[in-house]
Amino acid sequence: MIVSATKLTTRYYETDQMGIIHHSNYYRYFEVARTDYLKDIIGMTYKDIENAGVRMPLTETHCKYKIPALYDDEITITTTVREMTVVRIIFDYVITRERDGAFIAEGVTAHAFTNVENRPINLKKFNLGLYQQLFHAASDDNLEK
Amino acid sequence: MIVSATKLTTRYYETDQMGIIHHSNYYRYFEVARTDYLKDIIGMTYKDIENAGVRMPLTETHCKYKIPALYDDEITITTTVREMTVVRIIFDYVITRERDGAFIAEGVTAHAFTNVENRPINLKKFNLGLYQQLFHAASDDNLEK
Amino acid sequence: MIVSATKLTTRYYETDQMGIIHHSNYYRYFEVARTDYLKDIIGMTYKDIENAGVRMPLTETHCKYKIPALYDDEITITTTVREMTVVRIIFDYVITRERDGAFIAEGVTAHAFTNVENRPINLKKFNLGLYQQLFHAASDDNLEK
Amino acid sequence: MIVSATKLTTRYYETDQMGIIHHSNYYRYFEVARTDYLKDIIGMTYKDIENAGVRMPLTETHCKYKIPALYDDEITITTTVREMTVVRIIFDYVITRERDGAFIAEGVTAHAFTNVENRPINLKKFNLGLYQQLFHAASDDNLEK
Repeated sequence: MIVSATKLTTRYYETDQMGIIHHSNYYRYFEVARTDYLKDIIGMTYKDIENAGVRMPLTETHCKYKIPALYDDEITITTTVREMTVVRIIFDYVITRERDGAFIAEGVTAHAFTNVENRPINLKKFNLGLYQQLFHAASDDNLEK
Repeated sequence: MIVSATKLTTRYYETDQMGIIHHSNYYRYFEVARTDYLKDIIGMTYKDIENAGVRMPLTETHCKYKIPALYDDEITITTTVREMTVVRIIFDYVITRERDGAFIAEGVTAHAFTNVENRPINLKKFNLGLYQQLFHAASDDNLEK
Repeated sequence: MIVSATKLTTRYYETDQMGIIHHSNYYRYFEVARTDYLKDIIGMTYKDIENAGVRMPLTETHCKYKIPALYDDEITITTTVREMTVVRIIFDYVITRERDGAFIAEGVTAHAFTNVENRPINLKKFNLGLYQQLFHAASDDNLEK
Repeated sequence: MIVSATKLTTRYYETDQMGIIHHSNYYRYFEVARTDYLKDIIGMTYKDIENAGVRMPLTETHCKYKIPALYDDEITITTTVREMTVVRIIFDYVITRERDGAFIAEGVTAHAFTNVENRPINLKKFNLGLYQQLFHAASDDNLEK
């Protein structure tokens, strides 16, 4: 299975007065992790994708929280592609704590492919090269053939 | 059905370079809406709950995005309680655009009741008065008896 | 002196684990207040300004913090224009607490006028109507003639 | 002069619809950089300081923006201590772009030493060991003797 791993340290401004990382930030960690997946596995930056006239707006997000991340925790987000078609891509994420491997949270983000006017596109028709590059890397053994 | 309605205007810093409100902010809107539900329907602030030694950390969040909110959009978040037990509470949210009623997004947040050390509690045993106040308001016709 | 007043309630996600509103959010409150100034005093939205091809990126920001804002505080931000020329505009802000008028913070933001490519422009030459509208409203008695 | 250097990559959610990093985030970068200064130069984490019962709330912040940081820019924040006394500490920051050394912004943050109730303290009296550790590291050649 193709996996990218992103390590980051939680930041003070991400905490709230419960003394834990505010839950909305996990979706921001997922975004950082997704960006790394594209760089590390697909070999392109999200900037490259935007420069090709393609956007990947979110259509659905989901997260389950097991134990809270705290300030200055080193965490790892592992990212995989669950599904990719000509019109959308779905990523899975798992967040663990670096020092002991504790399971912190897991989540999913689903994205449509759209043009710059935010209209849904068929990526294969819109940009075959980009589609092939994304699909090839993501599908090696993650996706059903 | 018991519903609270929260009106707010999206803010510039909440946009991203796609020109839309960043998806993570919807969870922050849900939080504002949840706070209003507590004030308007339950008659207590989240601060009151915290002062009673109770926390409501998130255990699960979910959002589906239909059309993007844009900068300076007036939106309404309608909030209901889907389920409440002695150990948890689940809220449902719908976001619509004020000017035309367009459906923007819907979401769910699930919360455990915990003490200040982030340990799960049975709210009924921990604080009967708070439990009754929450449950009574939330359950009038939202919840199964 | 021309003043606009913006009332808002601080939000939970804006707190940090010190139990106070994180200092970076004051600049976001200033942004909300500045938007209101434009709407209330100038009669145009920041969206109108962007639609006219003009951007107002920040060139300098400054804030002094007296007492911390806390979660769920109702605050008022009063906004004035300290200076406006053909190439820039400077806003002053004061944040007070609604319930007792306590002085929370004061700040300044300076903005250049640029085009969409982020190049500095002379607003009077670029868009005389916009310049006159901004300058007229801002200058009535705030600015030196 | 004692300097710590923090490298980070700007994140997508930090952009706004001007297509640049929102100005409020620079203060969050300063915070990350300040944390690194404490770790690298002083040999203690901000968590250690909080665990000693000391807080360092902001009393003043200031930033000048030269050229905007963009999404996915690698930037370096260099941090120095401008001044440290028994009641406060002031940090200076410079942000440069990694690929060409371009000067992006510079800023200042001033902090009071307080106890957990947010009351100002004399750090030397409150916690001599912490004071000496901070002062010794910060003062080697940054501060006037």
